[in-house]
Amino acid sequence: MINANGNFQLLKTNYLFQTIAQKVKEYQAANPDADIIKLGIGDVTKPLVPAVVDAFHKAIDDMSNAKTFMGYPDSTGYDFLKKAIVQNDYTPLGVELSLDEVFVSSGAKSETANFTDMFGKGNLIAITDPVYPVYLDSNIMSGNAGKVSPSGDFGKIRFMDCLEKNNFMPEIPKRKVDVIYLCSPNNPTGTAFTRKQLKKWVEYANKNSSLILFDAAYKAFIRDKDVPHSIYEIEGAKTCAVEFCSFSKTAGFTGVRCAYTIVPEEIRVHVKEGGTVSLNKMWTRRHATKFNGVSYITQKAAEACFSDEGKKQINDNVDYYLNNVNDIKNCFKELGYNVYGAKNSPYVWLKTPKDMNSWQFFDYLLETYQIVGTPGSGFGKCGEGFFRLTGFGSAENTTKAIERLKS
Amino acid sequence: MINANGNFQLLKTNYLFQTIAQKVKEYQAANPDADIIKLGIGDVTKPLVPAVVDAFHKAIDDMSNAKTFMGYPDSTGYDFLKKAIVQNDYTPLGVELSLDEVFVSSGAKSETANFTDMFGKGNLIAITDPVYPVYLDSNIMSGNAGKVSPSGDFGKIRFMDCLEKNNFMPEIPKRKVDVIYLCSPNNPTGTAFTRKQLKKWVEYANKNSSLILFDAAYKAFIRDKDVPHSIYEIEGAKTCAVEFCSFSKTAGFTGVRCAYTIVPEEIRVHVKEGGTVSLNKMWTRRHATKFNGVSYITQKAAEACFSDEGKKQINDNVDYYLNNVNDIKNCFKELGYNVYGAKNSPYVWLKTPKDMNSWQFFDYLLETYQIVGTPGSGFGKCGEGFFRLTGFGSAENTTKAIERLKS
Repeated sequence: MINANGNFQLLKTNYLFQTIAQKVKEYQAANPDADIIKLGIGDVTKPLVPAVVDAFHKAIDDMSNAKTFMGYPDSTGYDFLKKAIVQNDYTPLGVELSLDEVFVSSGAKSETANFTDMFGKGNLIAITDPVYPVYLDSNIMSGNAGKVSPSGDFGKIRFMDCLEKNNFMPEIPKRKVDVIYLCSPNNPTGTAFTRKQLKKWVEYANKNSSLILFDAAYKAFIRDKDVPHSIYEIEGAKTCAVEFCSFSKTAGFTGVRCAYTIVPEEIRVHVKEGGTVSLNKMWTRRHATKFNGVSYITQKAAEACFSDEGKKQINDNVDYYLNNVNDIKNCFKELGYNVYGAKNSPYVWLKTPKDMNSWQFFDYLLETYQIVGTPGSGFGKCGEGFFRLTGFGSAENTTKAIERLKS
Repeated sequence: MINANGNFQLLKTNYLFQTIAQKVKEYQAANPDADIIKLGIGDVTKPLVPAVVDAFHKAIDDMSNAKTFMGYPDSTGYDFLKKAIVQNDYTPLGVELSLDEVFVSSGAKSETANFTDMFGKGNLIAITDPVYPVYLDSNIMSGNAGKVSPSGDFGKIRFMDCLEKNNFMPEIPKRKVDVIYLCSPNNPTGTAFTRKQLKKWVEYANKNSSLILFDAAYKAFIRDKDVPHSIYEIEGAKTCAVEFCSFSKTAGFTGVRCAYTIVPEEIRVHVKEGGTVSLNKMWTRRHATKFNGVSYITQKAAEACFSDEGKKQINDNVDYYLNNVNDIKNCFKELGYNVYGAKNSPYVWLKTPKDMNSWQFFDYLLETYQIVGTPGSGFGKCGEGFFRLTGFGSAENTTKAIERLKS
């Protein structure tokens, strides 16, 4: 019998959102008339904007004609989309990127997870707690998390606690770490780094030759001027940071699947045989061998997000979700809860009442108000006693949820 | 500086088809007027069929309306597509599958490569030579290929030679191997297993507790009745075989990206801590953590491949490509070459003239006739002295290529 990857045994049996879906399914089966409002998983509800829909239809017409038909895409993306990304998301910030530094993919989730393929053994990996579960799980799967101690801790993982007392902002590690996962605006806490705060991380990474994996999937929600949209706005980031971006939350592409990753050509990594290699070249080789690119149709739709019309329509949607999350935040504030986030972010992070842990509060909200949220403990130990709600519902459902909570 | 995955250093610098693309680009630049005919990479040229185009447009309309909008897909695929796959591709063969055994993905290439995540250390891996480069490269990347000997061989890879003298059919290994990659109809040799031949492999695998990774990406090209369309037509395959299928070559989805993998619930694999686990459960966990599913739009288009109209239109396209490849085969036969494949397959595999190796023949065809093919040596040592051509060009270009060759 073949030897399986034993690291899978170290994972929790279910991915967090599978567990929630199962619980909701069971509740609905037991209460068929319940009108459940889902403010849990970070999934959008607004339909694709007209500019994107038009581009989609046109691209399909291209695919239906032999003269304009497109076969295998380049595994790193079409130049037309890479150009649109650079010109719209980076040039206005004063960030220069070559097209070879842009990798179009089918999702920031798979990209952050697949990036563990780049790592050798022995790296010390710093992850915030609470955290998006994929960073940890993908490192466990690949064996990068190290051995498990009797207390259940992974030898190569260093958690950076994000608590009320530090405003949910991770503190710069005292000991040298090799890989650092940062997410800003943050999922799940809804906090965002200011330029000044992020600068300290870039300085630390360059000083310690660490690699920052910067998840910017929620950058479209930034409204404060001192919060950077890209880590490359910080001087020196190009020698130490990879950036993950997505059309999912921005353009409502959760069901379309398109994202992009920036791997600067300057980043060098160490190989055990001695010497250094280009991380960009490694990632290019991985894309060529283990990925076949994103469909032409999807890339044309993504390109339309950067047209003048597309940008306006998408920005209106983001404002709509920000309005929802702000209403939820204000509601819980009025009800006497400690609430965080919801500024520059579609997430509100609230402290559960003293007598309830995260999963108890999940059951309480579901059973009492038929509202689904995400237990903070699902994101890590420091998430215990907290709860995540999102502004991604419809305005009608959000209003209905607020009315139920206030009644 | 972080430690990188040193296994990448063991790969050839470029993926085979990148090298070919580069050579063609250089030739075109030096000869701007050359009318190059590409019969190299296995990419389709016929546009999407009308049934698929209609389904695409309808799915986009669904995505443009809040009531029918679809967000995150299930990471293993929508039931509507899984049902269509089982009912059309397996039930008629007498193969029963549950929907949980079907995994919809964005490509057979990424699936076969990602499947290396399932393996622990120490497995002996059997791969045919010549072979689709991804099987070997993905195992090298993940460290499963083992240490490299001074002669350049990987300690954990056993090549199964496919030569003229064995009709390019791999022989059952004499020593026990753990993982076996088989591709039928074969890329690149164009050969296909009969039921009788495949039965021996299934028996071997069950007897030796080996796992067969069966690549059936070209099954739509099968025309002989004694060639199975699925390994599950062979009794006992459900306890030892995973099957990879794709819409790429069948429905011309190379630029659309949709595929599916069958992982039977019966397959058990060994974990080092002792005991066995379900491979299906492991693969489900991987999909949930490292993948976010295929877009609703693409899955609706894939579903349309199974409508009565879709099936007819697609079958006509497959016949068209088979006709092309048959013409190419006959042309080289008339010219006195030893030619193989092209039956049940879109590939013809030909022996290069005595005084030329594979890359020399590549240059000869490109420079003399402006025809691009794929050097057999790019698929492995045993491919040296052979050359692959495909029927995926247009009928016009195929005819033009044949006229040039005969002139």
